[in-house]
Amino acid sequence: MNPLKSQFMLDQTITFLNHGSFGATPIPVFEIYQCWQKRLETQPVLFLGREYHNLLFQAREVLSAYVGADVNDIVFIPNATFAVNLIARSLKLNPGDEILASDHEYGACDYTWEFVCQKQGANYRKQPISFPSDSFEKMTDQFWKGVNEKTKLIFLSHITSPTALRLPVEMICAKAQEAGILTLIDGSHAPGQIPLNLKNLDADFYTGNCHKWMLSPKGAGFLFAHPRSQHLIEPLIVSWGMHVDPAISSGSKFIDSLTWTGTHDPAAFLSVPAAIQFIQTNNWTEKSRNCHEELVKFLPVFSSITGKEYLYQSDQQFGQMASIELPQLMDSKELKNALYDDFQIEIPVIEWNQRHFLRISYQVYNKISNLEKLYATLKDLIPRFQTK
Amino acid sequence: MNPLKSQFMLDQTITFLNHGSFGATPIPVFEIYQCWQKRLETQPVLFLGREYHNLLFQAREVLSAYVGADVNDIVFIPNATFAVNLIARSLKLNPGDEILASDHEYGACDYTWEFVCQKQGANYRKQPISFPSDSFEKMTDQFWKGVNEKTKLIFLSHITSPTALRLPVEMICAKAQEAGILTLIDGSHAPGQIPLNLKNLDADFYTGNCHKWMLSPKGAGFLFAHPRSQHLIEPLIVSWGMHVDPAISSGSKFIDSLTWTGTHDPAAFLSVPAAIQFIQTNNWTEKSRNCHEELVKFLPVFSSITGKEYLYQSDQQFGQMASIELPQLMDSKELKNALYDDFQIEIPVIEWNQRHFLRISYQVYNKISNLEKLYATLKDLIPRFQTK
Repeated sequence: MNPLKSQFMLDQTITFLNHGSFGATPIPVFEIYQCWQKRLETQPVLFLGREYHNLLFQAREVLSAYVGADVNDIVFIPNATFAVNLIARSLKLNPGDEILASDHEYGACDYTWEFVCQKQGANYRKQPISFPSDSFEKMTDQFWKGVNEKTKLIFLSHITSPTALRLPVEMICAKAQEAGILTLIDGSHAPGQIPLNLKNLDADFYTGNCHKWMLSPKGAGFLFAHPRSQHLIEPLIVSWGMHVDPAISSGSKFIDSLTWTGTHDPAAFLSVPAAIQFIQTNNWTEKSRNCHEELVKFLPVFSSITGKEYLYQSDQQFGQMASIELPQLMDSKELKNALYDDFQIEIPVIEWNQRHFLRISYQVYNKISNLEKLYATLKDLIPRFQTK
Repeated sequence: MNPLKSQFMLDQTITFLNHGSFGATPIPVFEIYQCWQKRLETQPVLFLGREYHNLLFQAREVLSAYVGADVNDIVFIPNATFAVNLIARSLKLNPGDEILASDHEYGACDYTWEFVCQKQGANYRKQPISFPSDSFEKMTDQFWKGVNEKTKLIFLSHITSPTALRLPVEMICAKAQEAGILTLIDGSHAPGQIPLNLKNLDADFYTGNCHKWMLSPKGAGFLFAHPRSQHLIEPLIVSWGMHVDPAISSGSKFIDSLTWTGTHDPAAFLSVPAAIQFIQTNNWTEKSRNCHEELVKFLPVFSSITGKEYLYQSDQQFGQMASIELPQLMDSKELKNALYDDFQIEIPVIEWNQRHFLRISYQVYNKISNLEKLYATLKDLIPRFQTK
């Protein structure tokens, strides 16, 4: 067994190749999480009513340093879906305005934009980005063809969910800023998987999850807003922060109005510093790179059984998560079930643009034999499930 | 010590008379809460991706039976603030429309309605209800004077937060239903403190917290919507439920569209059945009534040191939480600090309509000596803090 796997609580009988969907938390971080919950229960009013704002500030300080942002430009939110809803509801769209996204976005976020645009007579437009991928420059050009004078905001994943493709958000944010178009980057899969410097990226809005690749407990994410664009934001859940008690004000309306959303268990937010400490003391940058390199070596091998092309134009276009294309399947759910029920392999089978993919997550608790097992199993299963 | 206090994790050195703000969770319920979190971490994809919908349905079944609702008319939400925001954002208000509330509502909810009404050119109107209180009939008459042809929705607390006053929501819901006015009842403090039968109440919308008087862990509440009004509801956080996978559909658009709000820790929701079981196996109805009766006996005694009238026209107008009025204070925060720092009494000092109150929560883990200590301490402190 990979010795790091013993630091996680994951069922050892499962070949777990799906860190991407919900992450996994190391035991020392999880223990701190549950300690916060015990502390809360010891004196709920002291904890939530008087200590919480300072504790949360300390957690934001550690998080903001990790992602390269000023502490008052970043707030905790439960997850990226929440943040996308928050931004979508904040925008004052006029009929005919366009939100421009790629055709690789996360379905729940597509639904959010469709809902909000429909309410305001605006248009949610999805621009194709080729897959197998092109160079970052060509991706940028291809995407930018979707921009027109009605484009109000560009919504893009930093690393896409259905296809595990890193998009050239740096280039696109720079062009958008020049063109006076707002940007919202969905970094659900980015922090912890690739290095982030939000100040340098210069997006208007950036959201990330801490509970995926940063290993924190579930329900911890963040929303970054550039100071130039914070005035555009409205709280999704209005509460006391709308007219905050000066004694607990952060001095920032952005922070104050988004911090308190009614009584909740804030232990996931408060455990983010422990997750960052775990990552840093365990040389995650190096371990993450090793994982990436194992994927780089192994991915091309799958083509021999799928008959499909390698999907990435360069190694920089994915991190610890990568896709392989499958032949057209008769029933993708049946393949998923067979992989799990008969071979104990947890991995998502994805339908995207009428094509089928497997998305492999290779986390530090995985080992090469997991990929070898996947290969051997697919070799056996693909002929049974592909369209004749 | 009250033997039931040992079932809670509350700091034994504190005289805890503020169950109302954030509740408190019994140890057996808390242990189940943390067990759900461990189970999640053992196989996050199995738990959140495949088992969750059934587990949540089972929890909703237990909750809906407890509050007297059909299982598909009630969804879990983190807290009542969330539900009030959800309803406020769902309504399509026209300029001039009115939302009618009492002047005893929770401040964060006032802010929510002010925000939403301001965006749509509608009016948030607060109708006074006298305190010391009148009979339920006179309260109803006094409140109903605020109704006019523009009134679109009535928003009322079942038990008010600043004044701990039970409002005649049964009478008002009946009149509103007859008049074709929607009703949203904020039952933050109701479930667990007074018996509920949501079917009989016949409100359009009702929200409650499970983490206050039902003793569940923080972040568990519910929203009930009457079948006649479910079509008015839009999700506050659009996610996969907007176009749900038929394999996990509940058959109800109301349930489907509100159930999944992005990755979160659902342990608080799943622990609600354990909280209900704790309440039921510990004869809570009887114990709660005993608490109420102790308050009924003790409350009038405070008038001798406050010089203020008893606030409730009848014993039916409060449960385990009741207010006493204080003389005008020079600084209510200073009194609050003195009570906690010098006497270890946790109790809220409340400013409402330019008057000052203490809100006493008397939970089953309290004992008469807690009230006696409060009395003796106030006798000493009031002369020091009241306006000369």
